[in-house]
Amino acid sequence: MKPLRVAVLGVTGAVGQEFLSILEERKFPISELRLLASKRSAGKEVKFRDKQYKIEEATPDSFQGIDLVLSSAGGSVSRALAPHAVRAGAVVVDNTSAFRMDPEVPLVVPEINPEDIFKHKGMIANPNCSTIIMLVPLFPIHRVSRIKRVVVSTYQSASGAGAQAMKELRIQAREILDGKIPTKAAFPHQIAFNLFSHNSAIQEGGFCEEEIKMMKETKKIFHDDEIKVVATTVRVPVFRAHSESIMIELEKEISAEEVKSILLKAPGVKVVDDPKGNHYPMPIEAEGHDEILVGRIRKDPTVEKGIALFVSGDQLRKGAALNAVQIAEEWAKKL
Amino acid sequence: MKPLRVAVLGVTGAVGQEFLSILEERKFPISELRLLASKRSAGKEVKFRDKQYKIEEATPDSFQGIDLVLSSAGGSVSRALAPHAVRAGAVVVDNTSAFRMDPEVPLVVPEINPEDIFKHKGMIANPNCSTIIMLVPLFPIHRVSRIKRVVVSTYQSASGAGAQAMKELRIQAREILDGKIPTKAAFPHQIAFNLFSHNSAIQEGGFCEEEIKMMKETKKIFHDDEIKVVATTVRVPVFRAHSESIMIELEKEISAEEVKSILLKAPGVKVVDDPKGNHYPMPIEAEGHDEILVGRIRKDPTVEKGIALFVSGDQLRKGAALNAVQIAEEWAKKL
Repeated sequence: MKPLRVAVLGVTGAVGQEFLSILEERKFPISELRLLASKRSAGKEVKFRDKQYKIEEATPDSFQGIDLVLSSAGGSVSRALAPHAVRAGAVVVDNTSAFRMDPEVPLVVPEINPEDIFKHKGMIANPNCSTIIMLVPLFPIHRVSRIKRVVVSTYQSASGAGAQAMKELRIQAREILDGKIPTKAAFPHQIAFNLFSHNSAIQEGGFCEEEIKMMKETKKIFHDDEIKVVATTVRVPVFRAHSESIMIELEKEISAEEVKSILLKAPGVKVVDDPKGNHYPMPIEAEGHDEILVGRIRKDPTVEKGIALFVSGDQLRKGAALNAVQIAEEWAKKL
Repeated sequence: MKPLRVAVLGVTGAVGQEFLSILEERKFPISELRLLASKRSAGKEVKFRDKQYKIEEATPDSFQGIDLVLSSAGGSVSRALAPHAVRAGAVVVDNTSAFRMDPEVPLVVPEINPEDIFKHKGMIANPNCSTIIMLVPLFPIHRVSRIKRVVVSTYQSASGAGAQAMKELRIQAREILDGKIPTKAAFPHQIAFNLFSHNSAIQEGGFCEEEIKMMKETKKIFHDDEIKVVATTVRVPVFRAHSESIMIELEKEISAEEVKSILLKAPGVKVVDDPKGNHYPMPIEAEGHDEILVGRIRKDPTVEKGIALFVSGDQLRKGAALNAVQIAEEWAKKL
């Protein structure tokens, strides 16, 4: 892979920070690195591979001479700046929801639809974190026996709402332990020792945006308009890994044992399924790991050809930054 | 109602303490109160209605002259002592799982099957907490349009594992905030800032005992052997209210609006369903309340006649002590 000129947009956020860790860890070949953020953060210094970098303010002119932009600065910033980056000749891997459902923009999980990367017109979208964490283990099953319907309930960590939200969980927990009234800022409701329906806007039909993302993005990534997904998304007091309780209905019967053996060979998946030790996927064990943990694999006896499972995956890694860097790697390999 | 001679078995536990609060709150008519616990707690004093009571060790002879036993001392204690109480002429309302599936023992949620109370032969069983919290809002829907299938994923609080487990959540949270390794005792896995599959034993088919309780008890309480329930039960870092994400499949089509209007009139239920304010059931709002909070009521577009909802209910109150006291009230009314 030839070294690239890389810009990280939104470098001060939780995903932005994770981009740097992952680029470093995976020895991504970089000839030039530009760190971009809002005006507020401009001038701050960040270390990368033993070198200090100064954060610059992101403007429409920030992308001259850049090959690859890893972007995670929020939907409105992406909408405003990404087209300038594309016009300047860069390829943008965008972690926001701004362009995901655009038919001109590939939406990619490298374990599932890497071929879509090469249909890009300058922009490649990274799916929603809950969608990625659900689909990495579902796709290898889907390839053996088509999944007709998915019923999913999520247990989403604070990190999905950014670095401030993770901090808020910590601050509120201490306030409550100390008998104080918890301070609310990042979340509309108390997050410590509580949980609540995902606070994205409720749309027609009563589903929230997060649920609609899971329902729509699955169809696009799987190239299967017939797959039905119904989701209930819930925020829980966990720092940085999402969990999901998933029930699937398959086209042809496969046993729980077969599903387990499919998942044991699947890329990006680690089976954690020990009934004797009562050891199954947990967010604290998914944290910091690349794989999606999968367990509780069992036949759902209440429906024909049903399978139930439980997954945990690091929201900042595979749910966001890692998936985006993997997309960039696949793309860069063929340059 | 004539005053009764009441024994509380397992009075030092989380549910035992809640029994006392609820008896006091609801002005349950008591002529004599006997507080029973293990040898370890015997001699300790407990206040009830401005009077001090000394805890006695529970033995087979503890039930002479007692009309009603409210029991929550664990399955093995119930199995050992409840038959003695029945033989001594008392009626036992048992909060453990020991006798729930015994065909001779009614399993009762007063909002659903109060008539079963009077089929008792000395013993009445209180259902599992997750089952009660699920069924109180489902039953009024079931009466209008039979529920054929329930898919449920739980978010269960620490209280379900007892007073020590609630304390453990608090201690671990502080240890983690202070950068220490969390101490594990009540739970096999870290509970603070984590979650895990319910740690009851895994049975054949891969379901844990807690899940099997929800699946079997529903049939018995509803007197409907055909209803299918598939459950995934998960422990979350919340103190004392359980939440559940529930999807139901109905026999005849009813709209989400109709379901909402059924629930607005249902006993023991409070509708919390405000899409504009993004305000839905939350455990911290269910805590200390008698009603099961219900919201996120919406049509499930992925299945015929499907409805999705989200509930929260106080595990120690309606999930345990309150339901048992309500059973005792219904029974005592007809004495």
